[in-house]
Amino acid sequence: MKRTKIIDLLASQPGEALVCAKGWVRTHRGSKSVHFIALNDGSTIKNIQVVADAEKFDEEMLKQITTGACISVEGNLVESVGSGQAVEIQATKIEVLGLCGADYPMQKKGQSFEYMRQHAHMRLRTNTFGAVMRIRHNMAMAIHTYFHEHGFYYFHTPLITASDCEGAGNMFQVTTKNLYDLQKDENGKIIYDDDFFGEQTSLTVSGQLEGELGATALGQIYTFGPTFRAENSNTPRHLAEFWMIEPEMAFYDKTDLMDLEEDFIKYCVRWALEKCGDDLEFLNKMIDKTLIERLQGVLKETFVRLPYTEGIEILQEAIKNGKKFEFPCNWGDDLASEHERYLVEEHFKKPVIMTDYPKEIKAFYMKMNEDGKTMQGTDVLFPAIGEIIGGSVREEDYDKLMAEINRRQMDTSTLWWYLDTRRWGSCPHAGFGLGFERLILFVTGMQNIRDVIPFPRTPKSANF
Amino acid sequence: MKRTKIIDLLASQPGEALVCAKGWVRTHRGSKSVHFIALNDGSTIKNIQVVADAEKFDEEMLKQITTGACISVEGNLVESVGSGQAVEIQATKIEVLGLCGADYPMQKKGQSFEYMRQHAHMRLRTNTFGAVMRIRHNMAMAIHTYFHEHGFYYFHTPLITASDCEGAGNMFQVTTKNLYDLQKDENGKIIYDDDFFGEQTSLTVSGQLEGELGATALGQIYTFGPTFRAENSNTPRHLAEFWMIEPEMAFYDKTDLMDLEEDFIKYCVRWALEKCGDDLEFLNKMIDKTLIERLQGVLKETFVRLPYTEGIEILQEAIKNGKKFEFPCNWGDDLASEHERYLVEEHFKKPVIMTDYPKEIKAFYMKMNEDGKTMQGTDVLFPAIGEIIGGSVREEDYDKLMAEINRRQMDTSTLWWYLDTRRWGSCPHAGFGLGFERLILFVTGMQNIRDVIPFPRTPKSANF
Repeated sequence: MKRTKIIDLLASQPGEALVCAKGWVRTHRGSKSVHFIALNDGSTIKNIQVVADAEKFDEEMLKQITTGACISVEGNLVESVGSGQAVEIQATKIEVLGLCGADYPMQKKGQSFEYMRQHAHMRLRTNTFGAVMRIRHNMAMAIHTYFHEHGFYYFHTPLITASDCEGAGNMFQVTTKNLYDLQKDENGKIIYDDDFFGEQTSLTVSGQLEGELGATALGQIYTFGPTFRAENSNTPRHLAEFWMIEPEMAFYDKTDLMDLEEDFIKYCVRWALEKCGDDLEFLNKMIDKTLIERLQGVLKETFVRLPYTEGIEILQEAIKNGKKFEFPCNWGDDLASEHERYLVEEHFKKPVIMTDYPKEIKAFYMKMNEDGKTMQGTDVLFPAIGEIIGGSVREEDYDKLMAEINRRQMDTSTLWWYLDTRRWGSCPHAGFGLGFERLILFVTGMQNIRDVIPFPRTPKSANF
Repeated sequence: MKRTKIIDLLASQPGEALVCAKGWVRTHRGSKSVHFIALNDGSTIKNIQVVADAEKFDEEMLKQITTGACISVEGNLVESVGSGQAVEIQATKIEVLGLCGADYPMQKKGQSFEYMRQHAHMRLRTNTFGAVMRIRHNMAMAIHTYFHEHGFYYFHTPLITASDCEGAGNMFQVTTKNLYDLQKDENGKIIYDDDFFGEQTSLTVSGQLEGELGATALGQIYTFGPTFRAENSNTPRHLAEFWMIEPEMAFYDKTDLMDLEEDFIKYCVRWALEKCGDDLEFLNKMIDKTLIERLQGVLKETFVRLPYTEGIEILQEAIKNGKKFEFPCNWGDDLASEHERYLVEEHFKKPVIMTDYPKEIKAFYMKMNEDGKTMQGTDVLFPAIGEIIGGSVREEDYDKLMAEINRRQMDTSTLWWYLDTRRWGSCPHAGFGLGFERLILFVTGMQNIRDVIPFPRTPKSANF
């Protein structure tokens, strides 16, 4: 008979008709007369309670219903006498589909996250990771829906690249060369003519530059894809492989950009609050008791729009009044997370869009202000997390862009296609980048980025 | 003043209020008294006509309005006296935002696709590639929406992997090793302990195996991400980097799987017909005059469900009756595109789901039928394109799976995590894979896969 998902059963009225549920056993406790099985199928964090009269079922079969086992249950959906659920299944038939021995690594409750990471292929079957993955899905869906409804096109920028975006971080080399037989030229340089792409290639660190090609043709695009950094950073904030969202918009100025950033991120947070209630309640209870309040806080407030220079003044004032920071914050310094969090959490007590950064700490492609010293960056700073979005207006003037490129002594030989956008029919445009896992950290309250992606890639670890 | 997208202007009624449009000039023709400018901003394939009285504008400025230039126009939206559009802009103000010289590579109409590929960064500004990219976006949105509405979770499987899924194709190696200083052990083997991940890694050829981990925990998942094949294939059907969709469903049997495949692909095609009308009409006119009819045909028909063995009988009967094929098609042979297309286009004249293939031509993870000879594959064959979906029920029985793995003498050392799904709480499950670009080829009528992705990666080419 046709199975019904547990999320749908839990929303159903008790009735005469038989129902069928399939899933994995979370707990099973039995007495001589009756057995209670908590069954979960991933469709919701909630389990359905299966009640089985001991006398109606084979004792050996009942013994096989251990934590983690996969079973199929048929029975009547009846009003639950116990607390915590409206309905339960009074079982008439139980079939064990997959046994689960005592060596099942998710057998015990309360294992550490570090332990779970070593069993990342099985941690997905736990309440916490089920909740995180459902929220992760919902945030992706929120992002696609938001952009679709606002007339953006999802634009697939390449992963393998022969260019280097802003020289950011170390890159992974991609090759099909036989490393046992590397040919070199007369200067001792490895020859790449016979590599798959005929030149040296690596994994992209950003789709922005290609995204600008899309925006300056299609109007508004966004990327949403994997991005790579070969940084040897063993921190709770770094992954070697992570997902980025990078919208680019023709004809946007700084105000348009800030409006979009604020509207977009609020849309995502609102989606989570409206559609992930059960999972958020679980995480609010088990992981972070201020989670839901913090999410609601983001929606309530109009974000502060704060020029960097004013931000520095506030921080210096705070230092004068006795506030201690680990890192310096003089004009020209790149702000540390502690500074960002001070502004957001202590000074303004609301999200901040910081703007107009010194050019020395920002990328070459940003639009310079008339002062010649600051650039039209627009980063969104959030409580608990610091920078969640990094955005800017892009320099659309060919000569100004080239002047900045030359000032930085950048190699333009791999950037000719990017510069062409400023050569033919150039247009004002802007864009931002959002690290997807950083958003998931914020929305779930999880503390380690390795716990918000199914199979994290980190130094010395490419398991699963 | 605030600009309005051209798609919205074209849907507006003429009115008194000033409007502002910004975009790129497609054509500009002028007489002594009046100028007509066709303006496009990527929001639709349709241009808005801008009418400018010569006497009201500076002559030098008007000369700058060349094909490809970016301009901002203000004016009144008035009823159009010309044919082909309901409204046009009677310009009161024109500003040239970005000049475009005669060396603009998209200046001329009717350039070859091969020429366009060499200018892939600029071809996005043409009608054809605008249409293809808008449809590509819409197909991605259809896919996300379909799965979201059906309770699937978007599941991000890793790109960098230390495992090899079914040994499919050649893989790209990913490394941070210094190729000028490769250390080897006493047997002459390169040491990977000091590579980024501490072992040899490559780019994934499929997310399916990790996807099964997701499905056997969360119930129903799908992947949608980049996939890589380092095959030296210079054909209109191969890319080294392409996007795949791979749903996996717990508790699905072969019938459930076929139902999903048919429902899913029809949903995508219906979405295209309902939401991409203007772009499809353009492609139907310019690229393939049978396109829309073929798309509608897919929706009209119930797909044939055809066991491989019966398919072979039909093909052999056709050969007896004089049909010539280039490749053999005896029982046990992997069908070629010509065989698939004969069945779909000539014999049945409707899409076919072919099932129950000989085990020798299918992958180790497929569920074996009781005959011990065939496996529960379920591939969808389409007109014009052949196989568009490859699916199967997965073998959930640990012992049977291991027997097949051993028969094939596969190395299981990197697959322990996959086998664990069959060790603890194993469940019946099934899934399929869809090459995204193959879907886009079908829906756009384009002939070369390099023309349905913004920046194709192919042998000797990683440009842009």
